[in-house]
Amino acid sequence: MTRLKLDKITQYIAAQRPGYSLAQAFYKDVDVYQAEIEHIFLKHWLYAGHASQIPLAGDYFTFDFDTESVIIARTASGDVKAHMNVCRHRGSKICLEPSGSQKSLTCPYHAWNYNLDGQLISARNMPDDFDRSQNGLHKVNVALLHGLIFVCLSKEPPSLSALQNELDEVFELFGFNNMKLAEKKSYRIPANWKLAVENYQECYHCAPSHPEFAQIHAMAKPPKVFQMAKSDFAQANQGQPKFKQLNRYFDLAEVGQEGYQYDRNPLLRNALSGSAGGKPVAPLLGSIQEYDGGASELMIGPLSYFLIYDDHMLGYRFLPNSVDECICDVSWYVNESAVQGKDYQLEQLTWLWDVTTQADKKIIMNNQKGVDSRYYQPGRLSEMEHFQQSFLTWYLKTLAE
Amino acid sequence: MTRLKLDKITQYIAAQRPGYSLAQAFYKDVDVYQAEIEHIFLKHWLYAGHASQIPLAGDYFTFDFDTESVIIARTASGDVKAHMNVCRHRGSKICLEPSGSQKSLTCPYHAWNYNLDGQLISARNMPDDFDRSQNGLHKVNVALLHGLIFVCLSKEPPSLSALQNELDEVFELFGFNNMKLAEKKSYRIPANWKLAVENYQECYHCAPSHPEFAQIHAMAKPPKVFQMAKSDFAQANQGQPKFKQLNRYFDLAEVGQEGYQYDRNPLLRNALSGSAGGKPVAPLLGSIQEYDGGASELMIGPLSYFLIYDDHMLGYRFLPNSVDECICDVSWYVNESAVQGKDYQLEQLTWLWDVTTQADKKIIMNNQKGVDSRYYQPGRLSEMEHFQQSFLTWYLKTLAE
Amino acid sequence: MTRLKLDKITQYIAAQRPGYSLAQAFYKDVDVYQAEIEHIFLKHWLYAGHASQIPLAGDYFTFDFDTESVIIARTASGDVKAHMNVCRHRGSKICLEPSGSQKSLTCPYHAWNYNLDGQLISARNMPDDFDRSQNGLHKVNVALLHGLIFVCLSKEPPSLSALQNELDEVFELFGFNNMKLAEKKSYRIPANWKLAVENYQECYHCAPSHPEFAQIHAMAKPPKVFQMAKSDFAQANQGQPKFKQLNRYFDLAEVGQEGYQYDRNPLLRNALSGSAGGKPVAPLLGSIQEYDGGASELMIGPLSYFLIYDDHMLGYRFLPNSVDECICDVSWYVNESAVQGKDYQLEQLTWLWDVTTQADKKIIMNNQKGVDSRYYQPGRLSEMEHFQQSFLTWYLKTLAE
Repeated sequence: MTRLKLDKITQYIAAQRPGYSLAQAFYKDVDVYQAEIEHIFLKHWLYAGHASQIPLAGDYFTFDFDTESVIIARTASGDVKAHMNVCRHRGSKICLEPSGSQKSLTCPYHAWNYNLDGQLISARNMPDDFDRSQNGLHKVNVALLHGLIFVCLSKEPPSLSALQNELDEVFELFGFNNMKLAEKKSYRIPANWKLAVENYQECYHCAPSHPEFAQIHAMAKPPKVFQMAKSDFAQANQGQPKFKQLNRYFDLAEVGQEGYQYDRNPLLRNALSGSAGGKPVAPLLGSIQEYDGGASELMIGPLSYFLIYDDHMLGYRFLPNSVDECICDVSWYVNESAVQGKDYQLEQLTWLWDVTTQADKKIIMNNQKGVDSRYYQPGRLSEMEHFQQSFLTWYLKTLAE
Repeated sequence: MTRLKLDKITQYIAAQRPGYSLAQAFYKDVDVYQAEIEHIFLKHWLYAGHASQIPLAGDYFTFDFDTESVIIARTASGDVKAHMNVCRHRGSKICLEPSGSQKSLTCPYHAWNYNLDGQLISARNMPDDFDRSQNGLHKVNVALLHGLIFVCLSKEPPSLSALQNELDEVFELFGFNNMKLAEKKSYRIPANWKLAVENYQECYHCAPSHPEFAQIHAMAKPPKVFQMAKSDFAQANQGQPKFKQLNRYFDLAEVGQEGYQYDRNPLLRNALSGSAGGKPVAPLLGSIQEYDGGASELMIGPLSYFLIYDDHMLGYRFLPNSVDECICDVSWYVNESAVQGKDYQLEQLTWLWDVTTQADKKIIMNNQKGVDSRYYQPGRLSEMEHFQQSFLTWYLKTLAE
Repeated sequence: MTRLKLDKITQYIAAQRPGYSLAQAFYKDVDVYQAEIEHIFLKHWLYAGHASQIPLAGDYFTFDFDTESVIIARTASGDVKAHMNVCRHRGSKICLEPSGSQKSLTCPYHAWNYNLDGQLISARNMPDDFDRSQNGLHKVNVALLHGLIFVCLSKEPPSLSALQNELDEVFELFGFNNMKLAEKKSYRIPANWKLAVENYQECYHCAPSHPEFAQIHAMAKPPKVFQMAKSDFAQANQGQPKFKQLNRYFDLAEVGQEGYQYDRNPLLRNALSGSAGGKPVAPLLGSIQEYDGGASELMIGPLSYFLIYDDHMLGYRFLPNSVDECICDVSWYVNESAVQGKDYQLEQLTWLWDVTTQADKKIIMNNQKGVDSRYYQPGRLSEMEHFQQSFLTWYLKTLAE
């Protein structure tokens, strides 16, 4: 990025008023967007999927954002490896399908062949001094967190050690290793990715915008009501690992460590799960023995969010396509032994968050339309937007680095 | 706008040859487009609609161009007020539908609630020091000209006093206050807005391009033939207010006053109205007693044009979406007491100018395609393009300001 | 183009490593694209069509790329003339249809009328001092190569004399003057035009990507196998004009001369033509007496390629729409006396190269996707990409001029 562009972004950051929504330029300027890709999306751990999606050697799926595509594959030795989906010859995409199974990776253009560890195995008719060992696929860092697959495109990824230590018990409890992906939906949103992330980060809009959610989640209540319900809920379950409170998100993360957050919140009206009427929708997860009327919020890295009911889990991620379009991918996980049609029905499982995400898509689009106006000016944030405020503080600092 | 961009535009203006069509850059350069929005669309009065569209308290419609959206509403006290359609919290659009009826304006995102005068009435869970009185919607100036609603986004709009004094009689005569909107059509044109405005401003193209129009309007004839017919027509009706000639358009407007123009032109072959065969299509307007075989041209501000037959009126406006796309909105007005299906048929009423505008849309698109060529060079304007020439002179001066 | 942009392009060129595919910027930077239009597309001879498409006076077709459109017409005197499709008045496109027949060219906007030699014949109501003789259509150079129509938008086109001298015999042999266009298909490819051209220039991808082609063409074999087959084929037919070898392409062209190349290659498995099973698909071309089991490659100028079987010829051209989209136009020519349905079937005639071009479209799109990645890096070219390498060397030199 040129000095001129960097100076411009530095000025935007300096002009931003704390406690207020971001200025228009952060949502529209292509140079800001490029800086975000470099400073955020290429440097942090991103939630790509779950090991259950690639059980066998040769199984792979791709993970795409902006102009990038990553191949995540199970190798012959059973490891999960990730590489850029870009041939080292003339740059063609190698895996064209979003998932599949291949003994090795053959570029569809000139048939250069790589093994699942990314090594170039064969390349026809190359000059004698061509060195295959220097032409493997670009490696991408992979981390497996009890089955959850994270990737980081940076060569020096932030450490996951604090997160792993503190969340280990939670991963065990809910059986992250023994989940399977039941359904995945992609919501294409014609808006800047931050408007989508910010929307996820605050429940100030839940009461007016999400009647289905607000009937079940105490979080949609005014702050005082919610905090009282939460504190009662926590006290009744004191000491249980499910009720841990881990606040290492954004500016609260230690230097060099990836941020994270974990928390359990009460549901309303004896709801047991995130579903129509709060009814159970699948067998209990992991070593959970009974419904406790709560749901856990889990954040791993700045862009990946999980919502854990006793009988299913949702994975949320927000990925940019361009400065003015993003994708919200929602995944529904259940116990790996649960049988679709028998132990759970897809429609019941996905109803609440499909309805809610569709409503959010509309909200976010209309937010973008207003932000595009010359008359938009950053507005004061409410008390219920403190988590978003924490994200914005971190975002501005990270962009400035 | 940066100094570099301003210098570039200044150079374009200096290089423009009088009496010739505009250079390519004026139709393609995004920086010119942004300067146009600032110097023209945000500073002048724009025709938004008619009071009959919002008869009751709470009725509203939106008026959109480029990235802007304005809410025009009838307040509890019966006034017409206009505000930017942008929430002061995080910027969401507030009114999502193009028209409707609301007791107050509630943002669909976090339910901030404004009254129709734009005051912020409620905002949940805001910090104690949050001042609602400082967070009303941005006000937009409104002018009612005998029922026609104009808005101006500038805080210092040009004066309408000269226009109101001189046109008052005309407004009265045709009963502008007692019209109603019979039909409205939007024509999306993939071309720069000026190509659409210029097309409207000259009748050099009428004879070859608009056989339907040319059969009825003397204006499509060669200048000498037309001027003779017009002068005969004016003499036969001398002294009547219908036959006023007001030439205060573009560079002829007084400093600080919005420009305007009024004129009456003869129809051909005993035509009485702008319709198939020149036949009447609706009850006479206002206090008009009989058909006189003429039609009035009315311009109010640089971008709004009206064509007044004895029995109906058309409103034309040209609004940009982006540098290479504009909207031409055509509205058909009739006497408010006329009953659709009985006193007038929509198809007969709208036929002539729907056919003509569709033909113009094609012409304008093909004009843009040619202007996009590296081999386009500004061409000499004909005698029949003098009004367009007047617009171009004003345009260049206004852009330079 | 500004000094800043030129410097940037100069740096790109300097950084490019010989023997490797181009850096990303060459495929994505809009300024590079504009330089390419100026230095390549506006300066070289482009294959527009064939004289058989406009047999009669008044017949015309248009030839379009990027923002440009050229009218190619048969004049009253029987000549083929070309002019820019841009009216000298306000710039409208004149010919809106891709082909037709007109006694003269009348602009659809204001009816300015030009004869087929481009002279402005009439323009209504222009000022007295308007000089029609100065307002003819912009002329475009035309060259007829035995029926093939080439245009060059530059006022100083490269010379075609060397090419004409050396290829004359070939044109005669295959009866270029007595061909007719049997079919034409346009393939819109969302990729930079160079990725499409490079794809055409190498057969390294033929074996893995084009089974239909590889069954018939020896060229798809590894270099040593192919060279041996070719040399055997040449020796068996020594001295025949069909077996000329003309290598004046790209950097091998003489200064001031347009580049060209001609070569004959063997087919496989007794194939006689480029078709399913290598079966004949049309009457023999020109003065060809019998099938020889070969196919000729012909390049005329840097962007136009022909493939000549004994019974039909294909014309290929690659034209850019924008930096990230191009068109591949494929034309099938047969002997002018051949009767469709009787002497040839369109489906049989077009099958091989329709299948092959559709496969190439996919390949090229996926190449662009990978090239768009931040992790794309130019890769080493193989021995089978030497012709492409020659193009790249010329391209970099031409862009730098």
